[in-house]
Amino acid sequence: MNLILLQPNDFRNDSLAVLSDERAQHIRKVLRAEVGKTLRIGWLNGSFGTGTVLSVSKNEVCLQCVVEGAPPPKPRIDLLLAMPRPKVMKRLWAQLAALGVGRIVLVNADKVERFYFDSHVIEPDFYNARLVEGLQQARCTHLPDVTVQQRFKPFVEDRLDEWFGNHLKLIADPSGKKRLSNFDFNDRKVLLAIGPEGGWTLYEQEKLQEHGFESFNMGHRILRSDTACVAAISALESHLFTPSKV
Amino acid sequence: MNLILLQPNDFRNDSLAVLSDERAQHIRKVLRAEVGKTLRIGWLNGSFGTGTVLSVSKNEVCLQCVVEGAPPPKPRIDLLLAMPRPKVMKRLWAQLAALGVGRIVLVNADKVERFYFDSHVIEPDFYNARLVEGLQQARCTHLPDVTVQQRFKPFVEDRLDEWFGNHLKLIADPSGKKRLSNFDFNDRKVLLAIGPEGGWTLYEQEKLQEHGFESFNMGHRILRSDTACVAAISALESHLFTPSKV
Repeated sequence: MNLILLQPNDFRNDSLAVLSDERAQHIRKVLRAEVGKTLRIGWLNGSFGTGTVLSVSKNEVCLQCVVEGAPPPKPRIDLLLAMPRPKVMKRLWAQLAALGVGRIVLVNADKVERFYFDSHVIEPDFYNARLVEGLQQARCTHLPDVTVQQRFKPFVEDRLDEWFGNHLKLIADPSGKKRLSNFDFNDRKVLLAIGPEGGWTLYEQEKLQEHGFESFNMGHRILRSDTACVAAISALESHLFTPSKV
Repeated sequence: MNLILLQPNDFRNDSLAVLSDERAQHIRKVLRAEVGKTLRIGWLNGSFGTGTVLSVSKNEVCLQCVVEGAPPPKPRIDLLLAMPRPKVMKRLWAQLAALGVGRIVLVNADKVERFYFDSHVIEPDFYNARLVEGLQQARCTHLPDVTVQQRFKPFVEDRLDEWFGNHLKLIADPSGKKRLSNFDFNDRKVLLAIGPEGGWTLYEQEKLQEHGFESFNMGHRILRSDTACVAAISALESHLFTPSKV
């Protein structure tokens, strides 16, 4: 936990936060914070700041919180992900939040098993806790926005353009001619599509292309869904920042 | 399993392989291969080829194997990794092999717990099985070469230059001025250093810099070791291929 992330219901007034969950335990046991110490905090979907410890007891930590600076920029990468096996998805949530994904759409596909959607790993209480864990690890404040779409075709035909109309849309394809370095990103947001373990079907690929997706080549290796997500997001992220912006 | 990877002791003669482990089960149950079917195979550290099924029984599959083409190029990325928690390392092996790492050096660091080195996850039988699993997933043949170095200073002072003298050496550093796009890789191999969860100490950073490591900036996010490895290798990989080589 490299950041204590605070939510509206942690606050007693504008600046006084009272914590009694694992964040309090972390402050007491790992950070060994005593009264007067200042900690690095963040407001969920907001700014960073500092929290001065007002009191520490076995079950409760009180922090006097001050905002510092403007909120960090919002993530530029959104993800369209064919629903992975629940075991894989469980591990992936925190990593996606840590890498800085803005919006996550979990979608059905031909090679996705129907029962994946019955899993508790796509219940908001479950994934929001994992996402917050990832934000606290990576020191970020923007909680990814998650949507589950159990029908591929209606989503692509009726929602995709509305939600991601101005995004550059990219789909990894070993036969693709372009590499990430061939794209001109400027300041555009990017929607990245990652298929199921068995790949998108030809129909699904064509549907995505009809709605603006362009292929890029990430090499010939066939990666597991979770590795593929982390790999593609990281590769993309490293191309979104041009040298002049360093 | 997207490739059946064969090792010398699988062969009865130059071209006849007999399998009786999980590869045989995969061929029988997942691929449902019958006599006469050809499968995509690879020789460990060698070429790809095809295997024609000669017989399938409950416990054994016989393949007539033919090489096709030259061995794939060797990986260009080597990894110097501060030993992660065993639970994390366990998950990481297959991913490193799948991403295409040539050599993996697990090294001690100030913020690595000593007991990590007592774990079974760094025994060759354990990690080689995981590495082969990653190769079979990603459809690669080059088994990463693994070394465990329990002492940081002697390794850096006595081995690093000898083993990686001509490598471009990179270390991720949020305060680094250069991004990956600022480096000129040409055809050089790259040694990537990934620190422990708590980071390298100043002493360790200086020691690595003395031996040629240059900082690069991967952003301000603090990633878990396994995410950091996958993220940095993938970002690097995407910069090693210039557009003209596509």
